[in-house]
Parts: sequence; structure tokens; C-alpha cells
Amino acid sequence: MSFFTPTQRIRRAYARIAEVDRPEVWISLRAEAEVLAEAAGIEERLSAGERLPLAGLVAAVKDNIDVAGLPTTAGSASYRYDPMADATAVERLRAAGAIVIGKTNLDQFATGLVGTRSPYGAVRNAWDPTRISGGSSSGSAVAVALGIVDLALGTDTAGSGRVPAALNGIIGIKPTRGLIPATGVVPACRTLDCVTVFARDLGLGSTTARLLAGDDGLDPLARSAAEVVASAAGSRLSATPRVAIPTAEHLDGMAAGWREAFGDAVARLASTGVEIVEVNIAPLLEAAALLYEGAFVAERFAAVGEHIEQNRDLIGTDLDPSVAAIVLGGAHKTAVELFRDRERLDTLGSRARALLTGTDALLTPTTTWHPTLAELVEDPIGGNSRMGRFTNFANLLDMSALAIPAGAVDGRPFGVMLTAPAFHDLALRELAERFAAPTVELVVVG
Amino acid sequence: MSFFTPTQRIRRAYARIAEVDRPEVWISLRAEAEVLAEAAGIEERLSAGERLPLAGLVAAVKDNIDVAGLPTTAGSASYRYDPMADATAVERLRAAGAIVIGKTNLDQFATGLVGTRSPYGAVRNAWDPTRISGGSSSGSAVAVALGIVDLALGTDTAGSGRVPAALNGIIGIKPTRGLIPATGVVPACRTLDCVTVFARDLGLGSTTARLLAGDDGLDPLARSAAEVVASAAGSRLSATPRVAIPTAEHLDGMAAGWREAFGDAVARLASTGVEIVEVNIAPLLEAAALLYEGAFVAERFAAVGEHIEQNRDLIGTDLDPSVAAIVLGGAHKTAVELFRDRERLDTLGSRARALLTGTDALLTPTTTWHPTLAELVEDPIGGNSRMGRFTNFANLLDMSALAIPAGAVDGRPFGVMLTAPAFHDLALRELAERFAAPTVELVVVG
Repeated sequence: MSFFTPTQRIRRAYARIAEVDRPEVWISLRAEAEVLAEAAGIEERLSAGERLPLAGLVAAVKDNIDVAGLPTTAGSASYRYDPMADATAVERLRAAGAIVIGKTNLDQFATGLVGTRSPYGAVRNAWDPTRISGGSSSGSAVAVALGIVDLALGTDTAGSGRVPAALNGIIGIKPTRGLIPATGVVPACRTLDCVTVFARDLGLGSTTARLLAGDDGLDPLARSAAEVVASAAGSRLSATPRVAIPTAEHLDGMAAGWREAFGDAVARLASTGVEIVEVNIAPLLEAAALLYEGAFVAERFAAVGEHIEQNRDLIGTDLDPSVAAIVLGGAHKTAVELFRDRERLDTLGSRARALLTGTDALLTPTTTWHPTLAELVEDPIGGNSRMGRFTNFANLLDMSALAIPAGAVDGRPFGVMLTAPAFHDLALRELAERFAAPTVELVVVG
Repeated sequence: MSFFTPTQRIRRAYARIAEVDRPEVWISLRAEAEVLAEAAGIEERLSAGERLPLAGLVAAVKDNIDVAGLPTTAGSASYRYDPMADATAVERLRAAGAIVIGKTNLDQFATGLVGTRSPYGAVRNAWDPTRISGGSSSGSAVAVALGIVDLALGTDTAGSGRVPAALNGIIGIKPTRGLIPATGVVPACRTLDCVTVFARDLGLGSTTARLLAGDDGLDPLARSAAEVVASAAGSRLSATPRVAIPTAEHLDGMAAGWREAFGDAVARLASTGVEIVEVNIAPLLEAAALLYEGAFVAERFAAVGEHIEQNRDLIGTDLDPSVAAIVLGGAHKTAVELFRDRERLDTLGSRARALLTGTDALLTPTTTWHPTLAELVEDPIGGNSRMGRFTNFANLLDMSALAIPAGAVDGRPFGVMLTAPAFHDLALRELAERFAAPTVELVVVG
């Protein structure tokens, strides 16, 4: 892949940072000189004959993932700590030769799908700075889309690694939960969180996700090697793939032109020999609603609730009011409510499996609209809710997902998403390759 | 196995019921004439050449498992309902030719390990009627031990299918959770409950458990066929088995003579070529404590809490005071506490896996003492707690277990238990066969 040396890549990255003038993308950025020294080190290792699959590729890391030497804030200065070690995903990224240049902005505590819920500033969309970037992995997605970095790490609990991919016209890979260990990640919902990968190129994104995967012996929720091997066997793409799409009623209420764009994407996939079947995704949408409307939100309180409670005076300054309201709302849910929600979710999970039996994946739009920054200020909670229709259920139901660019509407990216049960990651990648999205060129960088 | 015709077996069962005079074993018992008609039907099917692997074997079913035609009480007359259909496990038992003669007493709502927590009477031990039967599957275990039935179904959330097996000198099989669907079972802790099998003979018990296993498409927590196949591959017994036993400190505080009896059992297993290794089971015991001392108890409230709340006036009559106190204690746990307990459990689960890596199973005593009925009246909660030291953790940590008779101490049965990760059911059975417990004959039937 490397037509440039690591040193040249770093120089280009910093030049690009200056050029695009998007300071809100970064919460911390390493000094160029220090990063150039690291690039020189990579060049020496390459000269010595070392094989580094991501040699010299420039990477950004969402600021809820630890990078030794840089603070972790999770989008809150009051929460900041200085990690002693890289997160497992970062350690593996670096071991493969990638160079991390900084930590990116996010919806605080990874709670949001908009990219505006941060005291470090709302992250503007790569294509249209009057619009939202999507979140919560806002800075990571925009850094990739603007061509500053080759790769970025995000996280995804309800769509945070997919929605900003769609709105910025890049690939967002949300692997099966636990394939990439979450060691060194600030939890949002600990049992649901996934580390994700953003890239402009599907091949590079997939390679990277594979390099980051594997039990690290530290994250109790990491999938064991035995489980991965056992489960992967039955999860290859069918010889004649069948892909489910939602029935018309669940494609209602999207942004102007998106339904047609989705129709075009479906037609493009069908033209490669994929059979398309309509399914009623009501059970998936009902499961999605449990994530914020039920007792599951208490897991966010378990993660960062005490910090917010102890710093109530910072709500409106360092602590985002929408995030604080959501997290504090989890404090008083009862364990009985949670067990009942879990039971409902188990039933919906059964129905979802039945629904998708005989198909290789579900194809949907990734999100439903692309609001302006002003629209989000007007309705910060409601506007956010509209973003997660097709993403919220995946982690709750232990599914893997892949967000793919699928052209543009009104000069802004439109994205689709493939979702399938756990361990179907490779099948999704194979389907995405067939998908053959038209090349989209970033022309608006303002 | 059948040296008697189905009709002869049924006649013998009812004769035995009259002979042993243990009315507290049963909550409902079918009329002999009706059961004899069913036996005649089985004989006709056999004459017609049908293959019925359990043809004419006599079975009892714990009264928290539905049997069409008999009420389900879960040990509470006020909770009683009349099921329209057999539970999946019962349907399969009957399809294999077994004949269900009645529903057995239990610790109410399957909450207890003693067999005394029932308005239908404390179930007396098969060997010593001044002592407890163990529970919660008290009547099922005693019906098997007394030779009334060949087989009985129980359930197990914290040891209910193992403790009474040990105290009555029989086999108790607690398969991997979800192998036998829980459709038609009154939940105790819905996500932890297992249907279990009691038998005097390991071969018959194992065959029955296998006949009952398999996804029924109705229980969302049933393991899928794909998962079973994928997971079973790596879970056979090693050529040179290694079995872990607890270090000395965790064998403290047992009944007189039990530590020596356990030592004998270990020696017997070692003599078959099994390598014995000591492990510190502290993480397992800490996990066990979470089941009653933490927020998990809220799952019991989710199951039957509203019934108890609406019938508080029956506490002390139809509702057992200990059970009511435990279940009502779950009402006010918060979802945040539950998520924190879950996190702790995940960490302990990791440690447990590490602890048992390289071994085929953990061998322990099944329980720690065998109190008299009077001792339980004195200390109903504390006395119960002592029963579950080695059983409470298995379901929480997704393990399979098998309780095996291992001789007698002071004329009463002593039992040991093999426990291993999910899907190691067959390996446990193979180990149990090597174990070769001496034959114990029931001489006290009073």
C-alpha cells in the first residue's frame, strides 16, 4: 500500500491537519517532531527486514481508548486520567507498524450518535461543516474522511462506529463483540461495547480489524480462540447469497432522497447475483428501543455515573447536559426491571434469528437522516434518537455489522450497512466487496 | 433394562408408594388405574414394533415443571395453575416411553437446598427420616432413592438438582444450561435454571438427559444445534485425565467424616489413572456468594415476586417465610448493582477458567453437611447457606455438573460432584464411569 515512506506520510498528515482547519477533531495531538522520530524508527525496522503489515500508516484513536503517553478524557477534562499502557487494540495497531498521531473528539462517554455532545466542540461533518459528523466516534471518522489519517479506532455500543462512517462517506467496521478485546477502553455499556475500525478502503479496514482481534487474556468478555474457531466454521457467505432488507414501512421518515438511494444500493447488490428478500424488522426495532428506554441504560451509570454525580456543578460546562441526563437516568432503574428487559430481549433475539434464518445478512441504510448542527441544538435528544434506528439493536443482539459508503445525496454521503449474527464478520466483508459502491471523492473540505 | 412389563412396573411403583409411607414426596399423584391404562398403551406400541428407549420406565416430575393434566404449583397452592401442555422435557420423556406418575414436592419456587421449605411438608431423607432430603428437588430425589420411580426430573439453579442427589445416594445430572430447554418450567432465576435428571444408575440418567436435550424453538435460552456441535468437539475427556480438587482450606467445616470420605473418593479416582491437582477455588466461592448476597436475587423477584407481594397474608401458611424473605429481598436491588455484580462475575469467571485450564473437571464434595430436620428449623437460612458451597457457582459460570454417590458416612450417603465448563457433559460422564463408586444399598426406608 505504501507509496510514501512513513516519514512522508507523517509530514503529509500534519500538513493536512493545518490545511483543513478542523481543530475540534482532536482532543490531543502529538508534536510532529516526536511522531517523526517514531516514523524514523519504523523505517529502521523495515530496513532491518521486519514485516510490519501496517508500516507507517497514520492512525488516530478515539479518546475513550488508552494510548500510553497521552491522556484519556472520554470527552471530559474532569474525567481525564493518564494511562500507563496502550489499550490492547492500540498496542496491536502499533505492533503492526501504524503510527498513532493523536486522540480524537467524541460524544462524551461515547453516549450519542451525533458528534455534538462534547465540551471540546461539536465535530463538523467532513463534507459539509454546517452538518453533524455523527458520533460518538466523531473525530476518528472525520480524520479518516478528510484524509488526515489512513485508519482510526472508534468504539460502538449503539452505532458509534457506524453512523459517523455513513455521514462522512467511509467504511466503519463493527466486529462481533469481543473479537477485539476492550482492555483499556472506557466503558459506555461494558457488556455491549466494541472497538471499531474506520478506513476509506474496505481492504485496509478489514485487515486492520483482523490484526486487532484475538483474546488478550485480560478482557473477560473477549471471545476465546476456541469459540472463534468453532463459530467461524458455519458462518461463511453462501454460494448464492440472500440478503434481507426491511419492508417499506420501516424505511419511512428518512431524509429526502435517502429511500431512493437505498433502493439504488439494493439494486446494485442484486445485480451481483444476490437474492433480495424483504423481512419485517419490527423485533429488531423493539430490541433497539430497550437500549435507551429500558433498564440497560443503568450500565452507563455503572461506568461513569459516580463521576457525573460527584461533578454535578460541571453539567453545562465540562459535562454535556444530554449525556449527564441519560447517564443519571440509569441510577434508579431496578434490577427486576433489568431482568424483565433481558427476558424481553431474549424473546426478541429469538424472533430476530428466525427472521434472518436463510439469509446471509440484513442490508439497511446506516442511519435515517443527516441534520445540521443547528437542528441538533434545537432537539438534542430527539434528533439523536432518529440516528440509531438501524444500529441500536446490533450489539444487544450480538451481531456484527459493517457500514459502507453508497453514493451521495445532495452532495453528501449516503451509507448502507450489512448486519449479521456474531462471527459472520468475514461473510459481511465478502458481501461488501460485491457491493461495489461507486467511488466518491471528497470535494468539500471547508 | 426392562425385566418387567410397563404394567408390572406401575403396579410395583404404587405398591412401593404405599409401603414407604412418605406422602410428603408428592404434591399430586395420578390415580393408579389411569396410569395402568397408559402403561397398556405403551405395551401396545411396543407390540406394534415401536422403539421406545425408556419404554415403561416410571418417572416423577418436580412440581415446577408442567405436566399436562396435573396442576403446577411450584410448591404453593396459591400459585397453582393448570398447564395446557407438557413442558418440553416432559414431552420428550413421554415420547421416549416413560410414564409420569406424579408431581413431586420441592422447596417453594425452587428456592432452597434443603427440602423443608414447602407448605406440602418437609421432605424426609430417604435413608434417615430425621434428616433433610436436600432440595429444592426434594421429592424427585427421594422418589428415585426409595425405588418408587426409575427416573425423576428436577431443576437446578444453585444446586437443586445435585444436593438432594448427594443426600439420598443417587445420580444427579445438571447438564450445560440450555441443553434441555426450559419451556414449561416455572422460573427461579430464568437465565440460570437447568432441567436436571435423577436416577440410581448413571447410564440410565445420561441416556435420559441426552433424550431430553436439543433446541425446541421455544426457549430463547436453549442452545442451538450449531452451538452444541461446534462446542462439543473440543470438550472430550483427555487421554490422561487431570482432575482438580480444592485445597485443604476450602474443605474445612464439613460434617464429621466427610473430609475423609472425600479423600477416599479422590484416591479411588486417582487409582484409575487420573492425575489429581489441587487448585485454590476462592474465585468460584466468591462467584457463588454473588448469587444470594448480590443483585442476582432480583431475578427471583422478576419470576414470582409479584405473586408473593400480592399474597403477603399467606406468608407463614401457603408461602414459606424463608422463601418469601429471599424473593422479596430482590425487589429493591438496582440495575446498577446488577451490572456491577455482572462485571465482578465476569472477572471471577476468567479466573475460574484460568484455574481449571489443563484439567478435565473439578472434583468436590457435593455439599458440606447433612442436617437434621430439627437443625433446619433452628436456623433455616444459615443452615441452607452451608449446603451450597460447591454448587452455587456452576450455573452462574455456565458450567455443567454431575453428582455421584461416593459411599456412606455413619450409614448415610456421601456424594461427590464433577464440575466442568459448558458442553463438557460427556467428559463428566466418562469421568464418572471411571469413578466406580461402591454399590450402596438402601436399608433404611422408614
